Amino acid sequence: MVKKAAPDSTRRSTRSRRAIYDAALALVGEVGYPRTTIEGIAARAGVGKQTIYRWWSSKAEVLLEAFTDLSAQAAEAEAAARPGPAGNGQGEGGQEENGIPDTGDLAADLRLVLRATVDELLDPKFDIPARALAAEGVVDEQVGAEFVTKLLEPQLQLYVRRLRSAQEHGDVRPDIDPRIALELFVSPLAQRWLQRTGPITHAYTDTLVDYALNGLAPRRPSPTPSAASPGGGPAAPARP
Amino acid sequence: MVKKAAPDSTRRSTRSRRAIYDAALALVGEVGYPRTTIEGIAARAGVGKQTIYRWWSSKAEVLLEAFTDLSAQAAEAEAAARPGPAGNGQGEGGQEENGIPDTGDLAADLRLVLRATVDELLDPKFDIPARALAAEGVVDEQVGAEFVTKLLEPQLQLYVRRLRSAQEHGDVRPDIDPRIALELFVSPLAQRWLQRTGPITHAYTDTLVDYALNGLAPRRPSPTPSAASPGGGPAAPARP
Repeated sequence: MVKKAAPDSTRRSTRSRRAIYDAALALVGEVGYPRTTIEGIAARAGVGKQTIYRWWSSKAEVLLEAFTDLSAQAAEAEAAARPGPAGNGQGEGGQEENGIPDTGDLAADLRLVLRATVDELLDPKFDIPARALAAEGVVDEQVGAEFVTKLLEPQLQLYVRRLRSAQEHGDVRPDIDPRIALELFVSPLAQRWLQRTGPITHAYTDTLVDYALNGLAPRRPSPTPSAASPGGGPAAPARP
Repeated sequence: MVKKAAPDSTRRSTRSRRAIYDAALALVGEVGYPRTTIEGIAARAGVGKQTIYRWWSSKAEVLLEAFTDLSAQAAEAEAAARPGPAGNGQGEGGQEENGIPDTGDLAADLRLVLRATVDELLDPKFDIPARALAAEGVVDEQVGAEFVTKLLEPQLQLYVRRLRSAQEHGDVRPDIDPRIALELFVSPLAQRWLQRTGPITHAYTDTLVDYALNGLAPRRPSPTPSAASPGGGPAAPARP
């Protein structure tokens, strides 16, 4: 039972929280994690330091919530833009709440979610603060662990659930560990984003889904021993 | 035609270079990239600043060479430890110089190289400075680009070559883009290392190779329409 606050104070709280989230994300993007302080966030948000300490006990907590809020906003916008009746992002039929769609077509569902992730990664509102935080997590084990456990891993678990459902329907090999399998399409995108090792596009993530589900090795017509022997056959002309 | 230096001065140069590499790697691991300076490297290496400026024009260049040297050392150690006659790491038979072995067994070759990469990533001598540099590359686009172009991408191109050879032998689908395909096993390892999203072991990279080559989707007996219909069949019991 939540005690209902007076409408005015609720509105003020919501406005303050939003201002604090925005200030925290902007600041970490500009000066990096180590130089982001509660004082700095408060000054930028135009609130007293005590307002922040009333709700959170550390800058890590503020940022954690600010990112959770940002991701929730992005997920809502993506769900609203999604075609079909389940456009409100709430659990309806095969649609998991804030999760990965389960239409029965694994490849299509993964393509959809990864394309939305591409859009998020390319949005400076997300890119700049997330990059600052990720950089800090690389060198500061505690910061990294905090944000992986509370922010990244829960998102990865949505893929685990979708892959388990696919296993139950025979669309993924039963011996596959879903927690490792998801890395075949999530990690390449993460590395291209973090280390800028290549362009990030919808076509790229579509390709990752195809390669991951179907494998790199050719699907040989299995029980026909008359066909070309594996690994044999004339070699293609060598490339320069 | 390389002008032969007097033995004493060559030995002195080699010793100085080694001291400078070690100092640069240790320093960047301790204080991070922004606070690593040529002065600091010189002091720690016990050489004059001018000695460094005689060979390199920036700290980025010193570090680049120090990492190249470190990787070369690791590759030599790995090649020396490798079973078989090609244990000297030099081009012999199917063995590429400082490259990825090409024994004709793609999965085995990839497993070998990725296991060696695991060992390198777990070695503090590599881990600590590489981590500091990677963190800087995440937020400083110029530093990131410099090291990706000159250090990371050349290593990835070794996988491209190996996968092209596999395509020529029919072990990888001809329509696959090797530059994207390699990310299916390289990027998961990179993300686990950088963001500490999971343990790094030989068993883990072996699994990545299996999943990437064979795909997550089951290999259905292709042209036998009497077999179980795709995607159908009784669902496995739901997990909690």
